[in-house]
Amino acid sequence: MAHRPAGERRLCGGRDDRGGAIPAVNSLPRDLPAGAAQEQFLHVLPRDEALRRFEAALQARPVGTERVALSGALGRVVASDIPAAIDVPPFDRALVDGFAVRSADLADASAALPVRLRLNPETIACGVVPAVAVEPGTATPIATGGPVPRGADAVIMVETTEPAGPDGIEVRRPISPGAFLSFAGSDITAGETLVRRGTIVGSREIGVLAACGVAEIEVWRRPRVGILSTGDELVAPGEPLGPASIYDSNGPVVAAAVAENGGEPVSYGAVPDDPDRLRGAIRRAHAECDMIVLSGGTSKGAGDLTYRLVAELGPPGIVAHGVALKPGKPLLLAVCAGKPVVILPGFPTSAMFTFHDMVAPSLRRLAGLPPRSAAKVQATIPMRVPSELGRTEFVMVSLLGLEDGLAAYPLGKGSGSVTAFSQADGFITVEALADAVAAGTRSEVTLFTPHVTEPDLVIMGSHCLGLEPIISRLAEDGIRARLMAVGSQGGLAAARRGECDIAPIHLLDPATGIYNRPYLAPGMELVEGWRRMQGFVYRRGDPRFEGRSPAEAVASALADPDCHMVNRNAGAGTRIVIDGLLGGARPEGYSNQPRSHNAVAAAIARGRADWGVAIGPVAELYGLGFIPIAEEHFDFALVSSRRGRRGVAAFLAALEEPATLASLRKLGFRPAAES
Amino acid sequence: MAHRPAGERRLCGGRDDRGGAIPAVNSLPRDLPAGAAQEQFLHVLPRDEALRRFEAALQARPVGTERVALSGALGRVVASDIPAAIDVPPFDRALVDGFAVRSADLADASAALPVRLRLNPETIACGVVPAVAVEPGTATPIATGGPVPRGADAVIMVETTEPAGPDGIEVRRPISPGAFLSFAGSDITAGETLVRRGTIVGSREIGVLAACGVAEIEVWRRPRVGILSTGDELVAPGEPLGPASIYDSNGPVVAAAVAENGGEPVSYGAVPDDPDRLRGAIRRAHAECDMIVLSGGTSKGAGDLTYRLVAELGPPGIVAHGVALKPGKPLLLAVCAGKPVVILPGFPTSAMFTFHDMVAPSLRRLAGLPPRSAAKVQATIPMRVPSELGRTEFVMVSLLGLEDGLAAYPLGKGSGSVTAFSQADGFITVEALADAVAAGTRSEVTLFTPHVTEPDLVIMGSHCLGLEPIISRLAEDGIRARLMAVGSQGGLAAARRGECDIAPIHLLDPATGIYNRPYLAPGMELVEGWRRMQGFVYRRGDPRFEGRSPAEAVASALADPDCHMVNRNAGAGTRIVIDGLLGGARPEGYSNQPRSHNAVAAAIARGRADWGVAIGPVAELYGLGFIPIAEEHFDFALVSSRRGRRGVAAFLAALEEPATLASLRKLGFRPAAES
Repeated sequence: MAHRPAGERRLCGGRDDRGGAIPAVNSLPRDLPAGAAQEQFLHVLPRDEALRRFEAALQARPVGTERVALSGALGRVVASDIPAAIDVPPFDRALVDGFAVRSADLADASAALPVRLRLNPETIACGVVPAVAVEPGTATPIATGGPVPRGADAVIMVETTEPAGPDGIEVRRPISPGAFLSFAGSDITAGETLVRRGTIVGSREIGVLAACGVAEIEVWRRPRVGILSTGDELVAPGEPLGPASIYDSNGPVVAAAVAENGGEPVSYGAVPDDPDRLRGAIRRAHAECDMIVLSGGTSKGAGDLTYRLVAELGPPGIVAHGVALKPGKPLLLAVCAGKPVVILPGFPTSAMFTFHDMVAPSLRRLAGLPPRSAAKVQATIPMRVPSELGRTEFVMVSLLGLEDGLAAYPLGKGSGSVTAFSQADGFITVEALADAVAAGTRSEVTLFTPHVTEPDLVIMGSHCLGLEPIISRLAEDGIRARLMAVGSQGGLAAARRGECDIAPIHLLDPATGIYNRPYLAPGMELVEGWRRMQGFVYRRGDPRFEGRSPAEAVASALADPDCHMVNRNAGAGTRIVIDGLLGGARPEGYSNQPRSHNAVAAAIARGRADWGVAIGPVAELYGLGFIPIAEEHFDFALVSSRRGRRGVAAFLAALEEPATLASLRKLGFRPAAES
Repeated sequence: MAHRPAGERRLCGGRDDRGGAIPAVNSLPRDLPAGAAQEQFLHVLPRDEALRRFEAALQARPVGTERVALSGALGRVVASDIPAAIDVPPFDRALVDGFAVRSADLADASAALPVRLRLNPETIACGVVPAVAVEPGTATPIATGGPVPRGADAVIMVETTEPAGPDGIEVRRPISPGAFLSFAGSDITAGETLVRRGTIVGSREIGVLAACGVAEIEVWRRPRVGILSTGDELVAPGEPLGPASIYDSNGPVVAAAVAENGGEPVSYGAVPDDPDRLRGAIRRAHAECDMIVLSGGTSKGAGDLTYRLVAELGPPGIVAHGVALKPGKPLLLAVCAGKPVVILPGFPTSAMFTFHDMVAPSLRRLAGLPPRSAAKVQATIPMRVPSELGRTEFVMVSLLGLEDGLAAYPLGKGSGSVTAFSQADGFITVEALADAVAAGTRSEVTLFTPHVTEPDLVIMGSHCLGLEPIISRLAEDGIRARLMAVGSQGGLAAARRGECDIAPIHLLDPATGIYNRPYLAPGMELVEGWRRMQGFVYRRGDPRFEGRSPAEAVASALADPDCHMVNRNAGAGTRIVIDGLLGGARPEGYSNQPRSHNAVAAAIARGRADWGVAIGPVAELYGLGFIPIAEEHFDFALVSSRRGRRGVAAFLAALEEPATLASLRKLGFRPAAES
């Protein structure tokens, strides 16, 4: 790789959540002309002020109308009131099968003195126009829905009549005028508004429209939203992933969120950071669409490139660049020649959050949709949540129903995580003036879905792939498990606090060499799970390790000062194994302490390190060499008082099923039952 | 029309809600062979038993899978667990813009003793694979999202560094190992289940799938549902309506409800009651689809025709024919050669109700969807609701928020109404063993939509088209008016009970000749609305009436014994006008007493009657002759205590707006302000 002077360094723009790229521009590109650096300067606005400026510049209203067939109108938004052109029913009709009669003829009818009516020579089936009037002393057979003939003022049910010869009936009771007859217009009156402007068409609206003969309606046109992701490192899902590449998730997720909010997404793909190509794509999107949503993931120089290209699109241009929001600070909001143009932060949770909070309301107005009404619930925050002063902060939370009400757990993952947004039930808002939320605070949680669904089983602790077949098995029986990966120690703490049913743990007690059991608190019992073989992991073919025992391999590693290890976090069972192998040595890489087997394997596979200790299946996933050391025990701390819960019982049963044992073996684990 | 002997009469099947057509078959077709009549016999089953038989015969499970692109997967149902193929992030990456460093180098850094690090000759932008290791005393510039190079165990934010010459930085604080670095797999671990079978794909699911490079997923195929309406009287929306025809609303509404429940509707249109055509259509639908939904509207003979044709389709065949449900008794449920075949009652509300109650759950299973979770609320039923013993009855209700909680008003319209289902907020269930619900009963209301939206203005009373522009005007300002057409007297009663804000009324006091004001109760005030000209209405060109005064026209009518009138209901202001004109005479048709101007005009236009009294705009709508008599006053009884409500204030303001007055004049009404 060519050397570049430091002054040329331009880093990714808009990706992180701490203002990332943009301060970088201020600080790093020291050889840029002062003006260019200045142009990039973030005037961070409070959230409400940024939103106010954007909405004032935009003045969003529906982008236009189109006519659609009723059969294709489901989910569309009605653009103008639709009046009924006809009465429904269009004529006085029979409500039952029977006979159209004159009620006066039957005024004195009784069982003792039945009245005989002569049948008229026509039968009014549905669709038949009556030709014969019902004269006194006569009746006309009529079907439900048939038009009532002249002269008749009621319909008598067939069940309440008796045949009387080939052309007559006998009636033994009187009937009121208007009985079993529905008058024209009694359901819908011509001129009445059937469906009002702004209504979202559902099957119920389709019913009344069809009944009035409406075959086509005017709806708001869906705003076309051009979606671009920018960045050399982005790869479209389905394509092979290069060594420093990541998949573009913002493009697909923004497209889906646009569709969910009434827009028609138009994807312009992931555009590399080439000024001409990027300018071309942005201009084309601006010309073809009603709105543009770009998202970061920009690399060298593209940060202020995109910014400048947006500024070129027309007045009034950028109205907010930098918003005191977390996640989401690097958000850019612009209105160019009447069309909204937005650059979302590159980090997935930041991007989704700012889209929903700041952009979706305007999109919905362009689509003629009402604001989304978010459901809210009250919940207790069980732990202190630190927050940054001066920024409105949104904290993604998972909800759990405890004995004394709902608890909202902050998802530990940051804005760079795609799962933080996806797995959260909702979020809490920490105002800009607060520096933390105290443990035990009652807070309002805005939900992502209308209802909170209480899980049948709560698992908090270490995550292992062996849990997947069990959870899938439970799902087949309709048991919803909520799994929160908080590590073994986190799981034990949650179990002590009564927050979970089961805590998966794999902790080695160095004093006794016993796994897990020594860590149980009173009120917990151990349920044995499975064993995972840990081993010395290295890149295949490395002559320092190939064919050695674990001890030999470590000795070989320690002998080479250029050999880097990757360690594990303190408290991990594997860390105890590693420290045992090292016997006090602290080689290069000892301070690199990821929290998972996968991170260890990834570091070795990518050359960040040369060896580490991880479990066999993960080494295999990464195609690494593996020298077995010892099994670790992946077990479950069960809160005894929860044993009776349906979800717990099902979990314990599933754990013993032959299919589960087979799945575990297939994953490379050894069920404890077989040890 | 040819005379048909009574024995040949065969009426509409499956249309009404009292068992309609089907008892008709037992009673009427006396010359059918006993077997044919027997075959048609309804064995009415309790709802739960009918449902149990249907579901047991069907054993519904998803109809199959297909692969769809992620971009087209929104709203689809995932058919199998989707595991992550990669770790996310795929490598250890920087969380901020800054420098990849060795934390040990900075252990003693402070403002007094800053540490100088030499910059390595590469910059890790996004997408760049590091080539140079971070050796002690060095740092590598790195962008947010960039892969952390070998040797580094932390990233330091650019803001916390100072430039130190062209190729160095100075750091004044220590940094922890792992700072601002996210480890491979920390967001998603390879092998972890990303989305579980049965999940409905939303934008959040698309995010995690895209992040793992998933471009295509396996979803349940949408079951194809063949939809046929049968009946000679049915006309497709958009086509001209014949004199005894009605528009097919069941076809479009079932299609929409199928789509809302995960199916793919396949419309076979409205099929006339021709045995060969009907057999052909049903067999084709059975061959091409996974399910068939027929709906009545059948005419002469088609009732048992459809029944026999369904029975021909294969075993086990019909499992329930007649269900003790109201609405919905004539429902037919069958399973033919593994596919569900259903004949819904013909009446729109019966059809929709039975579809949702009895059919949709199976359709959702075929589509792999979970049962729909209906929201429920508690409400008070303000009036006694009679019910039929022996049938589970569902009563459509509108909800209103009163001071002491929600009230559920039964919609007066029957199962023949298309609006009863469309306008209801939900329904209450009256068990088969109850013969009524007492006034004041607290009952559970199952909602049609997840939330009850409280109206800003409640209008109960007489309906007039003049209200439409006012309600539309309010809607523009976001004010939701709820209009319940209960007639003038009904509106006054509701106002007395505190159930509405405003009651539109048009009641003439015969004693004083004064409209409306004499009917106000204490606590109400009159708000004047508009005047509607009433007149003598007849078919244009009728020599008995053309060119006469109202009194002359009535005299002419009374002189002709073949001349039929159409009256109005007792209590209507117009009825008082009519009785005044008749002066005690009771001509033919006097007992025909519809409740609306439109029904009067429709009866005359269709020859059911020759004259009546109605308002001018309605006569014009039906192209009838009109001889003006006197204006009636359409005013509003306002509950004085409600004057301060936002909706009431807006209503009163809208009533006086020039645009409203113009709309009223255009409709043929004269605003009171102009009198």
